[in-house]
Amino acid sequence: MKNVIVGQSGGPTAVINSSLLGVYKTARDRGADIVYGMVHGVKGLLDGDIVNLSESLKNDIDMDLLKRTPSSFLGSCRYKLPDIDGNEKTYDKIFAKLEELEIYAFFYIGGNDSMDTIMRLTDYAKRIKSPVKFIGVPKTIDNDLAITDHTPGFGSAAKYIAATTKEIIRDGLVYDYPVVSVIEVMGRNAGWLTAATALAKGEDCEGVDLIYLPEVVFDVDKFIADVGVMLKQNRSVVIAVSEGVKVADGRYVCELAEHVDYVDAFGHKQLAGTARYLAGRVAANYGVKTRAIELSSLQRCASHIQARVDVTEAYNVGGAAVKAAFEGLSGQVITLKRVSDDPYMCITEPADVHLIANVEKKVPVEWITEDGTGVKPELTHYIFPLIQAEIAPLWVEGLPRHIKLGFTKTK
Amino acid sequence: MKNVIVGQSGGPTAVINSSLLGVYKTARDRGADIVYGMVHGVKGLLDGDIVNLSESLKNDIDMDLLKRTPSSFLGSCRYKLPDIDGNEKTYDKIFAKLEELEIYAFFYIGGNDSMDTIMRLTDYAKRIKSPVKFIGVPKTIDNDLAITDHTPGFGSAAKYIAATTKEIIRDGLVYDYPVVSVIEVMGRNAGWLTAATALAKGEDCEGVDLIYLPEVVFDVDKFIADVGVMLKQNRSVVIAVSEGVKVADGRYVCELAEHVDYVDAFGHKQLAGTARYLAGRVAANYGVKTRAIELSSLQRCASHIQARVDVTEAYNVGGAAVKAAFEGLSGQVITLKRVSDDPYMCITEPADVHLIANVEKKVPVEWITEDGTGVKPELTHYIFPLIQAEIAPLWVEGLPRHIKLGFTKTK
Repeated sequence: MKNVIVGQSGGPTAVINSSLLGVYKTARDRGADIVYGMVHGVKGLLDGDIVNLSESLKNDIDMDLLKRTPSSFLGSCRYKLPDIDGNEKTYDKIFAKLEELEIYAFFYIGGNDSMDTIMRLTDYAKRIKSPVKFIGVPKTIDNDLAITDHTPGFGSAAKYIAATTKEIIRDGLVYDYPVVSVIEVMGRNAGWLTAATALAKGEDCEGVDLIYLPEVVFDVDKFIADVGVMLKQNRSVVIAVSEGVKVADGRYVCELAEHVDYVDAFGHKQLAGTARYLAGRVAANYGVKTRAIELSSLQRCASHIQARVDVTEAYNVGGAAVKAAFEGLSGQVITLKRVSDDPYMCITEPADVHLIANVEKKVPVEWITEDGTGVKPELTHYIFPLIQAEIAPLWVEGLPRHIKLGFTKTK
Repeated sequence: MKNVIVGQSGGPTAVINSSLLGVYKTARDRGADIVYGMVHGVKGLLDGDIVNLSESLKNDIDMDLLKRTPSSFLGSCRYKLPDIDGNEKTYDKIFAKLEELEIYAFFYIGGNDSMDTIMRLTDYAKRIKSPVKFIGVPKTIDNDLAITDHTPGFGSAAKYIAATTKEIIRDGLVYDYPVVSVIEVMGRNAGWLTAATALAKGEDCEGVDLIYLPEVVFDVDKFIADVGVMLKQNRSVVIAVSEGVKVADGRYVCELAEHVDYVDAFGHKQLAGTARYLAGRVAANYGVKTRAIELSSLQRCASHIQARVDVTEAYNVGGAAVKAAFEGLSGQVITLKRVSDDPYMCITEPADVHLIANVEKKVPVEWITEDGTGVKPELTHYIFPLIQAEIAPLWVEGLPRHIKLGFTKTK
């Protein structure tokens, strides 16, 4: 009897469900009896909110839809396990639940915080001599996990961002007067996604003119000057800026706006966006038409543009997690290792979760141009293979078809 | 000797270049010698900025790329011809140019303002007894032209909006706490595009909870109450709101924000968006997490999601314009006439430009629910056939390939 359980945690990606499918199918293929899903991650496990995945994935079409469905099929949580010492009760509750369900292995698909969960559960299992295996399956559009060459989810987000940027660049050239477009891209601390806008440039596209990553201190005056130089050269200036850019004193650029839109019930400022603030400054300085475009949550949920490379890798890390567990490993995260650059080739490789949890991988400064307004070829070269190839949505009556979880609680 | 000239005007759509292709190919097929393109519309004609389209469209691949390229291939303008009386010089200059180029027919792809241009040129041609034919080719994502069943460009924008809305709805359900997402959709006066969010609902999607069109006076207090009701029923509430909603005193909702983000060099307020303002109000009232999502210019330039119905119709209105001119008609706009609802079938039909120019078609009030927070089945039934079928991008190295105009001026 081998039951396994899988959960999804943190922000979703366009391929997080491909990893779920990789876990599900591989576990079934390798003889697991029941593949349980935790609804809303480890929180669902604690609350007894658990589903039998076979009841939701009834046939091949369901599984193909799952690959193409945005958001986390099982629901997600931002719940972080507390320190073990002093909180043994929480851990005992989890392990009691796992024992009750006769769980052989526990898989968690997520980013940094989720790998922290795997690490703590592994450590506690060791302490209480539990035989349950714990394996982490990496995902995050932010691409900020250590050790792994890149994270599943990044490639599809990068493809969406680059494709959209191309469209915005064409659109910006439509009139014969100057327009400055500022595109705001996700990534609070790491600029990987913002860097993906550099891929727009090609035979058929002028590319973005200025790129600002959060790895470089942002200087508003320099920014205004940079835009001025570009406005002398081009009718349409397109700028990509990370939502996480900060000025020298550590404040986010969006915090510089004199006025906030609103203060909510908890006193949280509803900040104007970074792009909107910068577009306003440009308009005030140069008297040109500006546009602020926030790519917002579309970056993580636009599953109608998935990179097939990313879908396959997401599936593979899920499958490799099961393989590792069934071969007796625990406390591991399945990483991607680039074994060849040209042709691009990646394999999966387990790595100790203690080396990955809570470590943040930023864009290396040597991949950013000296003036801080662009990225070097090494960086686009690194991202390029990850956005390759396509997987078409299953179009039904004119729209991409998804699959949603029937929330049947089995426990 | 039959030369023709074509221009694009107003805001672009995802299929405005399919109409250009329809004009180009049909004109060539029907024996036109040179198909000229005005760069940046009639402004380009006045400035002598003209291209020979055959120099840009060299082969079948170029033409297939043109169909899939966002923005206006020839560039656009917001230039409106002045009244004829007192401005005869401007008109004489245009007609002299047309004579010099030996133009038989003049095609203008655009919305309301562009049809006004066709009307004035037709009237002036009549006055000076010029033999040049003037035909309007309708386009606008806003779908606000009279007489025609719908406008090319609307279907693809509606498909993009509905597909994106489905993704946002899935994404909104990812966590187990309440989230209110406010999606801001284009359309200053007509709510057609906002109504397209209603198409998201289906077997696999919960749909949007509240829809606010500009045809109905907006009441902020009622909005807050509407959201409160929905929050009692659903964990995730998704709201679609037109950028053009106005309160009873005529102000746009986005003008209600106490603080503006910035005042530009001309004293123009850089307004916080409607979605952001309303999300702020919801957060302040209910203390829930909110998200403001502006679909922004992506709605008009997301050519990676085109409705094939729309591409075909856009091509057809371009082709029918040439046919009409070559059969001797002038002062006409090519409209779409729905000859059957089920199965959906549309034919083209020329209509007198005087009946169309400067008339704005809004969503009929009887297609909006009485409480003003949704649309009736008649409206989704009307839009549904227009978003059908797909045309895949030409993916090259992981991104949709486009074509750009080499700005070779022939005059």
